[in-house]
This record gives sequence, structure tokens and C-alpha cells, in this order.
Amino acid sequence: MLAECDTGFLRDLAAVLPEGRVVEAAPRYLEEPRGRWHGRAGGVVLPRSVEEVAAVVRACAAARVGLVPYGGGTGLVGGQVAPEGPVPLLLSMEKMAAIRAVHPRGNVLIAEAGVVLADVQAAAAAEGRLFPLSLASEGSARIGGVLAANAGGVNVLRYGNARELCLGLEAVLPDGSVWCGLKRLRKDNTGYDLRNLLIGAEGTLGVITAASLRLFLPPARSGVAVMVVRDPGAALDLLGRAQARVGEGVSAFELISGMGLRFLAETMPQVRLPFADAPDWMVLVELGLSAAQDPGAALEALFAEGFEAGLVLDGVIAQSQAQGAEFWAVRESIPEANRLIGAISSHDISLPLEAVEAFLARAEPALARIGAFRINCFGHLGDGNLHYNVFPPAGVERAALTHLRADVQRCVHDLVDAMGGSVSAEHGIGRAKVADLQRYGDPAKLAAMRAIKRALDPAGIMNPGAVLPVEGG
Amino acid sequence: MLAECDTGFLRDLAAVLPEGRVVEAAPRYLEEPRGRWHGRAGGVVLPRSVEEVAAVVRACAAARVGLVPYGGGTGLVGGQVAPEGPVPLLLSMEKMAAIRAVHPRGNVLIAEAGVVLADVQAAAAAEGRLFPLSLASEGSARIGGVLAANAGGVNVLRYGNARELCLGLEAVLPDGSVWCGLKRLRKDNTGYDLRNLLIGAEGTLGVITAASLRLFLPPARSGVAVMVVRDPGAALDLLGRAQARVGEGVSAFELISGMGLRFLAETMPQVRLPFADAPDWMVLVELGLSAAQDPGAALEALFAEGFEAGLVLDGVIAQSQAQGAEFWAVRESIPEANRLIGAISSHDISLPLEAVEAFLARAEPALARIGAFRINCFGHLGDGNLHYNVFPPAGVERAALTHLRADVQRCVHDLVDAMGGSVSAEHGIGRAKVADLQRYGDPAKLAAMRAIKRALDPAGIMNPGAVLPVEGG
Repeated sequence: MLAECDTGFLRDLAAVLPEGRVVEAAPRYLEEPRGRWHGRAGGVVLPRSVEEVAAVVRACAAARVGLVPYGGGTGLVGGQVAPEGPVPLLLSMEKMAAIRAVHPRGNVLIAEAGVVLADVQAAAAAEGRLFPLSLASEGSARIGGVLAANAGGVNVLRYGNARELCLGLEAVLPDGSVWCGLKRLRKDNTGYDLRNLLIGAEGTLGVITAASLRLFLPPARSGVAVMVVRDPGAALDLLGRAQARVGEGVSAFELISGMGLRFLAETMPQVRLPFADAPDWMVLVELGLSAAQDPGAALEALFAEGFEAGLVLDGVIAQSQAQGAEFWAVRESIPEANRLIGAISSHDISLPLEAVEAFLARAEPALARIGAFRINCFGHLGDGNLHYNVFPPAGVERAALTHLRADVQRCVHDLVDAMGGSVSAEHGIGRAKVADLQRYGDPAKLAAMRAIKRALDPAGIMNPGAVLPVEGG
Repeated sequence: MLAECDTGFLRDLAAVLPEGRVVEAAPRYLEEPRGRWHGRAGGVVLPRSVEEVAAVVRACAAARVGLVPYGGGTGLVGGQVAPEGPVPLLLSMEKMAAIRAVHPRGNVLIAEAGVVLADVQAAAAAEGRLFPLSLASEGSARIGGVLAANAGGVNVLRYGNARELCLGLEAVLPDGSVWCGLKRLRKDNTGYDLRNLLIGAEGTLGVITAASLRLFLPPARSGVAVMVVRDPGAALDLLGRAQARVGEGVSAFELISGMGLRFLAETMPQVRLPFADAPDWMVLVELGLSAAQDPGAALEALFAEGFEAGLVLDGVIAQSQAQGAEFWAVRESIPEANRLIGAISSHDISLPLEAVEAFLARAEPALARIGAFRINCFGHLGDGNLHYNVFPPAGVERAALTHLRADVQRCVHDLVDAMGGSVSAEHGIGRAKVADLQRYGDPAKLAAMRAIKRALDPAGIMNPGAVLPVEGG
């Protein structure tokens, strides 16, 4: 059983740190983007060095006080808020926000955990390099949280998840020891993969304090198009044809449904839509090519090929950077439109690519047996990652249907699981999906996870209640 | 303390398995490619299903008998041979060699652990796909061992290590439980990354029985060239220029030294060399491009640019597939030439890219203080991965200098470590580098590794003595 983070503990903690590190928990630390959970914290600690983080973890371990690591607060599964159990200490990494080094020749950047994702991107760009991880909350998400959650985003198709973009970590383990693992090597087979164990562990096995990140040469020329597709299966065929044309040059391939466009028209009329009538399904394609290739010509040829094959019904190729940005604004405004409409249940799921069509065909009638809903499905089709969000019908308040949330979630997740998919593609488990993981997770893997958690964090202080249920609590 | 794999244990084991699964340990199971270690085994078990593997592991756990998983026997660090400690059981995966499924649309192939790497490549090719992992021993290495060692090879630059090419695993954990983790998803954030923990653990945390592997569309057109470079720094500059031209289209970028070419001329005169006089340094470049691009023209332009900049002194662009294969034969024959010459000490190291030049400049004089040697340095320059092998001077027998092996190794590894590199880039720790890992490994990481090993394999039955020293042995 953990102890409360009370005034006595905070006083002792403050005594081992420089002045001003321990503060009251301002409301912003206790909220999360969807407003589903309200966190609690005895206080917030703002360390400025890895040694200070280690001192915090040692103090928590000694007093058996729970510790919730906090990045930008943008996580969508409640990993950063603790609504239950003994009140924890919140560890915000915001003051560890230095970019320690950029190595353009080696294509590596070393950032502290508190650096905002957009600032990593900017620091890379300043050296003529690309840090490709890009997602809706990049203006406030911090790199430590991005790694703890193994975030995905729109460029996974080409460059991989956060996991694939990280070469090394510096982290404080639950016993307060510091792992100096900031290697910047593409190949390093010296022992167990502690890096990937901490990435995606959502702060339950240690606190990431810095990371070495992979940079790339940005594509010399890029092009964006939106195309109306016959259906999601046609979209997948089109992706295959795009990759056959330009290989890794397909940087993003995003699926957008007609419902998403109608939600935008309803809630964010300032967002300019590419087609006068919302099509049932469209894709946004971005190509990033070398100097010798013409992305406009490649997109035109792809459109012609898709049209010829009956996959593509209409399309617009951006004629300027501004128009390309407009197309992206459509895609990136959908989460906000969803928020304004108000989902009953949101699902961050992934499926084997060839099962996406069948899933969509089966999910809608299955949900119709529960009630009448509007479904906005969008996402990173190239990764098999769909955001499958369920809304009340027009004119009905969300509150009138929230009693169906559990049934809706169960229906979607059961189907995803039966089709070999994942009930958390890129957002993680946090506190929102702890029960899902117990239900759908492989028993042998769950047992191994519990054994690892106990081995590395025997007191259970690291982000208690996230990912795994609290043991013996 | 583990028990011996004696006749009583073998009899009991045979009783719980179908007939013919337990056999005597033929000599081939007890050798390794460099002849440094001679293994021992009470017997060899040849399971034909994951259930049979689980029964074997349960029997070993109950009797506390050590279990050495065995793939193709091609590992270079002794992970597959146990020369010390209580005699173990050897578990060969060779009879689990089915390709369970190929999903060309989803770009996934599911192979059992005993499938030979070349057979995975061929099964992918039969469906018009590429499995890009390629290394010298691909004709005998089996995919389970390739994953257990997180093998690298010549295409890591473009496609990643074995780790990045694996989407899911089926494995038997040390308690005999079966983890059914054969997901074929690009994004799956449901809990700790058990997949990457088993990959690279060299059989010490469980037995991989099957894997889902990523496939790719093969590049439509490819081209190969060899170019004489001014020095390794010029080679790195040339790599940057190649990537600026064709992005991910650079499939391989291999460094070859003049010593390697002279070794070939001496030991394998049948291998045709591309330049009449062995240059000090050359690179082999392979481009794999889309249909709209011309690899020959790209290589010519790269050569012209490199020549103009003083980086490249000479070069030949392959005019046919046969000539390209000839260039690759040069690169791929170097390990065999090395074997015929006989190294005092071989080093599989990696360095931050921008440190490669400085390392080479410092290593040679440092070694000269130990003795007179010939050095053959070659490898995957794009990954910062060098095979830095030290040989006796011409006319001197290896046996006359093997007493210097420890000093040579220490000299090279100390320098690598001081420069932020890794003492095992792609071969792993096995038994050869257990002491190196203790010396150069981060103490906090080593403690976490021991804790994980104890948590998952409390009896210490899985590949005892590999990666970590046997505890309490």
C-alpha cells in the first residue's frame, strides 16, 4: 500500500532539492484533454537535472509515495492523471527542456524530456534536418511523454513510431538509479533492450529524462493531394500503387470519412473543405521525393491510374504549399471537430491492413444493434490505425447516450480483437484501458509484465494504476 | 545451481514427447563458426510444435536443467554453445520450419523459428515482396536465431535491424507458458514491449517459436557501384550526398579496406577484384529506386559530384546484374578471406557516424604500441558499424600472437567505449562478450537486466551463461 503525498513528505522532499522545486498543484496539472478524469496530486515537483529527478525518485521510494510523471499533459488515455488511490506526487519535466546537442552529420539530436515536440522539430530544421514525428498536439506534447507513450502520428508509415525514432535514453529507474543510455548508434546489441522497455511503459518503469533522437534529410520536394476513393478497400489499393510508384516516398496516407467532413462543416466552418459535397471516403496523400523527382507529376500519374482502375472518383492536387497546408488543416481539424460534437466513445484501434475493409463492414451493423449513432472513422490508413469514434445522432445530446459507452466500447474492441487487431494503436493504455488490457491481453504476456513491474518497481511507486492494476492495493 | 542433463532427465523428457524428438548431440551442434568454443549437451531435442517446445521448457524448469536454444548455429559470439557449467539440453528449432502464412497485401509473413533466412527471403520473393534482412550466413541462419541475436546485415541502413523487421512473436517463456503475440500490426501500444525484450536477449528470457515479419515492395530498379574514396571521412560525406540525392533509395553503403582486397587476392584468387591495384579505401553503394528513376544515372551523377569534391578517386558502375553480383561477391567474400588468414581478434563495433574517422585514426597507432599487426576494417559504414579485425603480420602464424588477443581486444574496446560506441554492434554478447558487457555496460542497466532475468527466469534455465554471468553458480 502506498503512502499519501502529504505536507510532511513534501517538506522533506523540498529539503533535499534546491529552492522552488516543489510547488502546489495548479489545476492545469490535474486535467486531461477529454475531461474524463480529474487527477489529484499532493504537490508538483519541477526538477531541473537528472540528479534532481533521481533525488525525487529516491525520496518517493523511501517513503513509498506514488509518482506520476507529467509531460505536456496531452495524453488521451489518462496516463498523466491519478484520480484514485493514495494521493501521489506529480513530477513535471517542463523545466528540463534543453536540447543538449544536435549532430547533423550523424543525424542525431539529444533532447531533454521536457522539450516540446515542435521545438525538437524546429531544432532539427535549423540544421537542415527533419525530425519526422508529427501529431496534432505537437505544440504542447513533450518528448518524454511522447516516448513514454510510444506516440505515432501521421508519418509512421514512412519513419516509424516514436520507438523507431529513438536511439537512446537517459532515465531514472524506480530505485533512483540513473541509466546513462544516451547512445546515438544505429546498431548496439549489448544486452536487453531497456530502451524499448521504457518506451511505451507510460512512466510505470522509470522516468525518461532525455533521449537521443534520429534525424533525417528532409525530402527535397513534396506534394500533397486529396482524392475521393470508392471505399476504404480502394484506398488501400491506391496506397499499394503509390508505394509501387515511389517506394518510401509516400510520407503520409490518411483516411477521412464523409462524416468527418460534415462535422467540420458543422462546427468549424472556417476550415475550407476540398470538395463541395462531402464524399463518403477520401484520402490525403503526401509524397516527399528527391530533387530529381516531380511530386506533382507522380500524384497526377497516381490519380490517373487510380481513376482508370475505378479506385478514385475525384481529386485535387495542391498547386502550392498553401493549398497543401489547407488540405492538412482539414485532416488536423477533425479531432477538434470531434471534441466539439462530443463522442460517446473514441477508439484508437489498429488492424492488419487486409482486415480494415472487413472491420468497417462489420462494425457499423454491430453498433446499430446497440443504438443509432453517427460514426466518424479517420486515421492513418497506411498503418492500419483507425480512430473509430462513435457519436450521438444529430440533435441528440451526448449525455443522453453515455450509458451506452461501455457497450459501444465492448462491441468495437471485441470485434477488433477477434480480427487480430489492437485496442490501443498509438495512444497507449494509461488508466482508460487498464481493464481492456486485462481482457484482451495475452495471459502469458500479462504475467511477464507483472513480473517485470515487480522486479523493477517492487514498491509500485511509478505511475501507480497506469497500464497495470495496482497490486495488493 | 542447475542440474545436469543426464540420461534420467532425457528419458523423462522423451516420455512426455512424441517418439524421436530426443536425439544424441551430433558434433555439428557443438561447434561454432570460428572454432573458439566447443559446446557440450546431454542431448538434443527437436520439437515440432510450440506445444512441444512448451513441454520441453516445463520439463527443464521442473528439473532445473539448463536449455540452450539452437537455430542455424551461425552465431559469432558463442550464444549457441555452452562450454562450461552443468551440461545443458540443446533445443534445436530446425523441425519447426514452416512458413505459416504470407499476407502480400498487408506486407507480412509469418515464419516459424526454424525457417532458414534465405527461405524467408524466397517465400517473400515468390509473392513479389522483399524481406530485406540479408547477411553472409543467410543460407543457414534460422529466423529464430536471427531475431534472438537482433542480427543486422547489409540492408540495415534502409530497412533496420531484425528488431525493426519484426511485428510480433510467438514464444515460450521460461515458466513454460506460451505467449501468442503474432500480431501483424504496425502500431500496437498495449503494454510493455515484450517483443523487443525477447529480440536481442539471445535465448536467455525465452524461446522464440515463430515471428511475423515485415515485407516490402522491392525497389523497381537497382544499381550497384564501387568507388575508391579518399578516406573513410570522404566515404561518409559521399553517403550524405547519396542520401541527399535519393533519400531512402540508398539500400547499402559498405566500406572495404585495401587490406581486405589484398586478403582476397591472397586467399581467394577466384574472386574478381574491381580495381587492378587495391586502393586504400573503397565503398560499395547499392541504390534501389522506383520505376521512374534511373539508378545508373544517379550513380554516375554521384560519382561526378564526389570526384569534383575530391571525395572519390575512381569508380566502376555495374553495367549488368552479373557485374553488380560480382561487386557484392567481393564484399561478401571478405569474412571467408579473414577466416583463411586467421584473425588474432575480431571486433564487431559501432560508433556515432561522426566519430568513425577519429576512431580509425586513433585505433591503429594504439594497436601498434601492442605489436605489429595487419588490420582489416570493413563493414556497414552507413550504420557506423565496423568489423575491425586484427591479424598477424604477413609470414607470422596466428598462434605466435594469440597471447596478445586480450590486450588487443581491450585496446579496441576501450577506445570504442570512450568514443560513445558499442562493443557489440550486430553480433550480440553471447558468451564471448559477457565480461565486456560487465566492464562497459551501464551499471543501472546491468542491474535492471539482472532483475528482469531473475523475474522471468528465476531458476536460470534459459541459455545459462549467455549475456549475463550465471548467478550463484
